[in-house]
Amino acid sequence: MSLPVKLHILGCHAATPKASTHPTAQILDLQNELYLIDCGEGTQVEIRRNRIRFSKIKRIFISHLHGDHFFGLPGLISTFRLLGRKQELHVYGPEGINEAITLLLKLGQSRVDYPLIFHELSSKKSECIHEDDRMRICTIPLKHRIYTNGFLFIEKPAPRKLNMEVVGRMGIDKAYFRKIKRGEDVVLDDGHLVKNSELTIDPPPPRQYAYCSDTSYWPEIIPLIQGVDLLYHETTFLESEAALAAKTGHSTAMEAARIAKEAGVGRLLLGHYSTRYRSLNAFKKEAETIFPNVLLANEGKIFEL
Amino acid sequence: MSLPVKLHILGCHAATPKASTHPTAQILDLQNELYLIDCGEGTQVEIRRNRIRFSKIKRIFISHLHGDHFFGLPGLISTFRLLGRKQELHVYGPEGINEAITLLLKLGQSRVDYPLIFHELSSKKSECIHEDDRMRICTIPLKHRIYTNGFLFIEKPAPRKLNMEVVGRMGIDKAYFRKIKRGEDVVLDDGHLVKNSELTIDPPPPRQYAYCSDTSYWPEIIPLIQGVDLLYHETTFLESEAALAAKTGHSTAMEAARIAKEAGVGRLLLGHYSTRYRSLNAFKKEAETIFPNVLLANEGKIFEL
Repeated sequence: MSLPVKLHILGCHAATPKASTHPTAQILDLQNELYLIDCGEGTQVEIRRNRIRFSKIKRIFISHLHGDHFFGLPGLISTFRLLGRKQELHVYGPEGINEAITLLLKLGQSRVDYPLIFHELSSKKSECIHEDDRMRICTIPLKHRIYTNGFLFIEKPAPRKLNMEVVGRMGIDKAYFRKIKRGEDVVLDDGHLVKNSELTIDPPPPRQYAYCSDTSYWPEIIPLIQGVDLLYHETTFLESEAALAAKTGHSTAMEAARIAKEAGVGRLLLGHYSTRYRSLNAFKKEAETIFPNVLLANEGKIFEL
Repeated sequence: MSLPVKLHILGCHAATPKASTHPTAQILDLQNELYLIDCGEGTQVEIRRNRIRFSKIKRIFISHLHGDHFFGLPGLISTFRLLGRKQELHVYGPEGINEAITLLLKLGQSRVDYPLIFHELSSKKSECIHEDDRMRICTIPLKHRIYTNGFLFIEKPAPRKLNMEVVGRMGIDKAYFRKIKRGEDVVLDDGHLVKNSELTIDPPPPRQYAYCSDTSYWPEIIPLIQGVDLLYHETTFLESEAALAAKTGHSTAMEAARIAKEAGVGRLLLGHYSTRYRSLNAFKKEAETIFPNVLLANEGKIFEL
């Protein structure tokens, strides 16, 4: 069994933080290793409130340098120091993020005692920004008022699973198991070749999560996010404010749903709501006129992939 | 009757913001004009939670550039813009504060639409940084790990009050009233001089508030804060952690009380507690062994001067 992949919403509202709605921040729990995506003001408080362990956060991804996605980062980086962090922290974000954090730390004459490693992004084409044995993470260039990236998290395929019934019947030695899980065929002692497909069954399909915020309606992302299990797409406005959405570099619920439909994603998760709307149901209803599997992000909610 | 002077505590804990304790921020309500003193992360949410009107905030005073006194400022400045502020905002704080805010706004390609005026401080001697017909505001140089100022708010004396019984009996014309309120004597039609002290009574004494955070025990401030009505003095630690207080540039409750006693202040208000302490009563008890009139700051509390 593969470990769960979970998305924990800490904040999913646009612009100004309020007492009960928080600016963008979410935790992607990838097989028990946590990635923080965006970090609006107050994110560290939401991390505490949601009982997430700071030490499990390995990497932080910042989409763009508007305050509601970024102004919680200086405080979080300071808090890691106060909590005695020793392990590396990797921060991915637009050019300038290093200068900003470095200046704020310098003004406070504060040094971090742990390795703080910035990966500054400036490409307007999708690029792979991290890869390890579990994950590959790529940017999704978005169209907003300033340079902005979404992020695509692609799980690596798990090893193939042994079909123990067949393996046992053929008397295949344990020494071959690792090779078989990697997908290789086996030559038996009598010289007979057994195809891997006879010996194994498919592992669970690798999971993919695409985070797209903030952005105008931008069909260029469709090839990048084709078929992902879960797409978080911003919907600051409803279609009735389409002109305002276009002007401010945001999307409507209907536009988010069009992207989801064209990209053939599994489920569409809406968020980054303008606080002008009292109820979120209108976002879901509007998106469902285009695409059936619509979820609403909300502070504190957890979605499993 | 003079308008009330009130101090509204938004946050009074050291270091990291948590769900129920907030870093330093307080609102001094000076005859219905609001001054914000320090601005830790999340201050704008506390402003909302305490139903304080953003538009009434005229001036912001930042003691020093550690995150727990400053990291809420970029977001607050952005929120003022989103709320359509047009009036001037004056920000007083250490050298570098302008560069920091300007860089963060530039990275977000955000401009403020209202006049944002920085008054950068670098003097190690007390200086008057603002004066108008109601108030004079001076710095209180403190001793912390980095350049830090407290702030002294001194109300201007109100006009003298007419003793209407005497004024009526002497038949003094209304035309003289303004002069008399200013403290001048009056020469009657018969050439007789009436001393101002016969015609007026003392107005209520002007109120004074001194804010001192963060600081080591630093008796050099005593002449500056002599006799103020209310002294807010930090007490990050109890005397049992005196060595840690000295090392980190903070004070104990006993040290705060010593300052209050030597300066002969009216009341001592404690705050900037380390979150290591479960209960605040120990701070009060410790300070009361030295000085009798001790108050405890707490999130949401209002103190009248």
